[in-house]
Amino acid sequence: MTTCCHFIEKIPDGDNRIRQTCPDCGYIAYENPKIVVGAVCTWKQKVLLCKRAIEPRIDYWTIPAGYLELNETFAEGAAREAWEEAQAHIRIINVLGVYEIPRISQVYVIHKAELITPDIGPGPESKEVVLSEWGDIPWDELAFPSVTWALKHHNAGSNADVIFVRHPENL
Amino acid sequence: MTTCCHFIEKIPDGDNRIRQTCPDCGYIAYENPKIVVGAVCTWKQKVLLCKRAIEPRIDYWTIPAGYLELNETFAEGAAREAWEEAQAHIRIINVLGVYEIPRISQVYVIHKAELITPDIGPGPESKEVVLSEWGDIPWDELAFPSVTWALKHHNAGSNADVIFVRHPENL
Repeated sequence: MTTCCHFIEKIPDGDNRIRQTCPDCGYIAYENPKIVVGAVCTWKQKVLLCKRAIEPRIDYWTIPAGYLELNETFAEGAAREAWEEAQAHIRIINVLGVYEIPRISQVYVIHKAELITPDIGPGPESKEVVLSEWGDIPWDELAFPSVTWALKHHNAGSNADVIFVRHPENL
Repeated sequence: MTTCCHFIEKIPDGDNRIRQTCPDCGYIAYENPKIVVGAVCTWKQKVLLCKRAIEPRIDYWTIPAGYLELNETFAEGAAREAWEEAQAHIRIINVLGVYEIPRISQVYVIHKAELITPDIGPGPESKEVVLSEWGDIPWDELAFPSVTWALKHHNAGSNADVIFVRHPENL
């Protein structure tokens, strides 16, 4: 459901774009790009992968990632997602990459992280979670391009606190 | 208006947070952190500053910046804001800094940019726009901490395509 049954389309005063607006109370449902936070999480040369239990891309593999919530830091959100999707406790090392995908109005902030213990388990959104050797990553069965970019950038090495903005068009 | 008169608070199926929801059609008004894009814009050693004509922080000085819109790249959004707030045509050089401010659920992506021409003028949200010498920047009359951070990071130098995440707590 991308809009509410009560809304009408209207350009608010002082604005220059059509917004979904409630004619009864004046509420404006602004829609803006969303931030997805996640992490490439490793345990002794192995990387944490989750087999998706939900659409989109059910049965494909991903790293833990999801929408940043209100009042969260990037690192807090990435750690929360690792817990929710893989019951993993992680330590964030640095930001690995910032990927903007304007076509779908999403910005990915992906971290480099270490597992604090190797104990993992599938959360409600995962069918299966594994610690995969780098050589065994199922590149053809990854859920999203951002997962491929993050794993490749992790493999290429990154410096603490340094981020690279990568436009998908350039990858 | 932070919510609509028709909404109720509800935890959607498969979610773990209260969301504003329409009981009539099931629409969920997800609220997530927003991205603000902007630029430190220079013309021959001078920096573009705008005196705000609107709240918050009316009459204080800012760099052109505003919410990223759907389907925009960071650079497109920053250039749009420079045009809307200062009628300035700019060329984006690189990202200067990414600042996350979880207290207010905002993420700033601020660029380094050059004015293509020195022709500027106040847009509807600005009372006055100026090209200020660096020595004349009114540091005590800047609108937001992010403006101060961006100007200081610009002054400290930055490398193309390299971003630093700065937590306000650490500045």
